[in-house]
Amino acid sequence: MTFALDPRLVADTFNIGDLSLSRALLMNDARYPWLILVPRRTALTELVDLDPAERTLLMEEIALASEALRTLPQVDKINVGALGNIVRQLHLHIVARTIGDVAWPGPVWGAGSPQRYEESAAAELVARMRRALAIS
Amino acid sequence: MTFALDPRLVADTFNIGDLSLSRALLMNDARYPWLILVPRRTALTELVDLDPAERTLLMEEIALASEALRTLPQVDKINVGALGNIVRQLHLHIVARTIGDVAWPGPVWGAGSPQRYEESAAAELVARMRRALAIS
Repeated sequence: MTFALDPRLVADTFNIGDLSLSRALLMNDARYPWLILVPRRTALTELVDLDPAERTLLMEEIALASEALRTLPQVDKINVGALGNIVRQLHLHIVARTIGDVAWPGPVWGAGSPQRYEESAAAELVARMRRALAIS
Repeated sequence: MTFALDPRLVADTFNIGDLSLSRALLMNDARYPWLILVPRRTALTELVDLDPAERTLLMEEIALASEALRTLPQVDKINVGALGNIVRQLHLHIVARTIGDVAWPGPVWGAGSPQRYEESAAAELVARMRRALAIS
């Protein structure tokens, strides 16, 4: 079986590109810069479904995504989460939070409705994240 | 400076014991089996504040905590999160979720108020997690 993104992830995100292990996506929600990493393995639900070497690699990609978000202005905190209660395909959220953002200090998950990006703003942020993640 | 737990983490948890890197805690909230890992380093806020070797170790301790929770009955999903919007000391949440639990399928963070454990129930779960985590 080849790797395929869950259709809900496809619908809610823009593609940034592939890291060694994970596909990097930008969540289509202009309220917060929000990256998603999806390890390109099939039938994974939990972090512990990855083998230890892949978990190490994923942790380094989480760190890379965090650093990429920290190049943006007004980032006060990075939130990282692996929930998967709704979309079961293993995916990691890395979200740049600003003190006073619409969900602050609560979590972004389940908080209100996404605010879709203008096309040009999304393209610009995708390009910027692609550079920050060193994806060619 | 020696490692000290944030007083809010002390107030909200029971101590389980120390893993190689992290102190393991049980959140005093009987709604969900909920572990917290706090790397015993000072002045850390983000995952990327750990060096790569420590991040690898932390990932393995997250996996260990996930497996410990999966020994409990009726665990349908593990949720993992590093938020720190309120308590800034770096800490990881590993939470056992059951389909239909009071926050399902939303996140546990910010959902309602904790339901405190009976003393004996907390002691029993702490002992069980200590065994599952191989803490002597």
